[in-house]
Amino acid sequence: MGGNMSLRLVKRGHRVVGFDLSQAAVQSYAQKGTVAAADWADFVKKFQGKPRIMWIMVPAGDPTTQAINQLIELGDPGDIIVDGGNTNWKIALDDCKRVKAKGMHYMDAGVSGGIWGLEFGYSLMVGAEDDIYERCLPILKDLAPDDGGLVHTGPEGSGHFVKMVHNGVEYGLMQAYAEGFQVMKLSRSFPGMDMHAIAEAWRSGSVVRSWLLDLIARGLEQDPELSDIKGYVEDTGEGRWTVETAIDESVPTPVIAESLFARFRSRMENTFGDRMLAMMRQQFGGHAVVKDAAHEK
Amino acid sequence: MGGNMSLRLVKRGHRVVGFDLSQAAVQSYAQKGTVAAADWADFVKKFQGKPRIMWIMVPAGDPTTQAINQLIELGDPGDIIVDGGNTNWKIALDDCKRVKAKGMHYMDAGVSGGIWGLEFGYSLMVGAEDDIYERCLPILKDLAPDDGGLVHTGPEGSGHFVKMVHNGVEYGLMQAYAEGFQVMKLSRSFPGMDMHAIAEAWRSGSVVRSWLLDLIARGLEQDPELSDIKGYVEDTGEGRWTVETAIDESVPTPVIAESLFARFRSRMENTFGDRMLAMMRQQFGGHAVVKDAAHEK
Repeated sequence: MGGNMSLRLVKRGHRVVGFDLSQAAVQSYAQKGTVAAADWADFVKKFQGKPRIMWIMVPAGDPTTQAINQLIELGDPGDIIVDGGNTNWKIALDDCKRVKAKGMHYMDAGVSGGIWGLEFGYSLMVGAEDDIYERCLPILKDLAPDDGGLVHTGPEGSGHFVKMVHNGVEYGLMQAYAEGFQVMKLSRSFPGMDMHAIAEAWRSGSVVRSWLLDLIARGLEQDPELSDIKGYVEDTGEGRWTVETAIDESVPTPVIAESLFARFRSRMENTFGDRMLAMMRQQFGGHAVVKDAAHEK
Repeated sequence: MGGNMSLRLVKRGHRVVGFDLSQAAVQSYAQKGTVAAADWADFVKKFQGKPRIMWIMVPAGDPTTQAINQLIELGDPGDIIVDGGNTNWKIALDDCKRVKAKGMHYMDAGVSGGIWGLEFGYSLMVGAEDDIYERCLPILKDLAPDDGGLVHTGPEGSGHFVKMVHNGVEYGLMQAYAEGFQVMKLSRSFPGMDMHAIAEAWRSGSVVRSWLLDLIARGLEQDPELSDIKGYVEDTGEGRWTVETAIDESVPTPVIAESLFARFRSRMENTFGDRMLAMMRQQFGGHAVVKDAAHEK
């Protein structure tokens, strides 16, 4: 994603220094117009002007923490460190403190748009002090879609907070579509309905039309039975954090929570919980139990 | 909605006979190009060709049943009765039998698009026999958006089934957005975030962009605090039927069910269930209970 973002900036006339732990990646983007950096020190050295705007686009957690620490060590006071990953907003508040202790500035930019952002632009949710946001605006505007998609959410941390909620909403939207299509697909009253044709029809004029529905129609066109896909759904943290935040702040989010739990459930088979239920029915009512020699755990 | 649909057809060159229980409505649409009918008998008489395609667009339940019965009585064998309302698909199967017993044909068309359909066209989910669908295709194509939005879902009843699920999905999508915006609005860590600005930013480039989000941004622009709106959410049946169908056919739909229940909850204050919880906490732990003289029930 960082690679595509750098290409979008290069196309729009920005000078971008690119560094990645993989030199193959660095060289492939350098061929498309970025300035290649050999290592962290070289990355900082290759900037022509100051203050530097140094945008980190690596997985949240340790990789982001290490990148921030490198830039704190190698950068100069006044430089701006931007975290564009899906960092937990509470960790972002800590990162911000470390960055500021060096006399540098911190900006958190939640980025949405996936692999399509290179073409369409990225929706950006940005937390920063006002003057830092203003200084980064030329880059932010060129990363964002031409028709908008950019918001200054508030102080540092708020960009990741809003991006976290964005992803929590995304969980709920995805689960709602998944349940609806499953009701139609499994219908005994109207067997064999064409899921792809229905998705296509919903894309135009209906109340449920959306970009996710566009992707659903595309996926169902490629594989109408989804037979090449295993129903095992990962999560990368933002759904959990949305629910954790909702719990911290006593805000009910039943649908987002249920969507998160549905993902957990998708990774389990023949669960202990389900065996508990079957066991209890047997205990109180003598109901037949399906025997299974191969438990999951 | 029926009025707007008739105008869309008139604009595209169809001859439309219009009837409504309100003659004021009939006359107002007649001024825009429909042929006015004075009563049910006059409605049937004013058609120039046969077989008639008679499209019913009235509230589901008794009004639709009465309209169908009138048209069964007054129409001729070969005529096509189209139910475009949000009729329960099981009732549609009964309606279809009564219509066919007269030698007439039945088509159910789920229609989505709300007040915006006049301009954009309507997403249409149509259940009908193949030859009946083909015969109605010129009308269906002109009601639908120019870029698609039309699907023949299968036999009679399936159109209402798919429209029901469409609305169930809509409940889930709406609830997911509502929860996400509530988490941001009530955030103690980042108070005062601009909900309208965030909605606008999400509209461009983000994964959660959708037509519903366009409407959310519009609503938040008009009234950022939603202070003119009471949080009392109606339902018109399709969400219930989606969950009922899911239960009948043993398909899990936790998010759609939860979205339905959230609507029920929005209409209650100081519920018996919540008082039960408070009472139990008092009973087992001696926890303080908030006294209330004015119970809801």
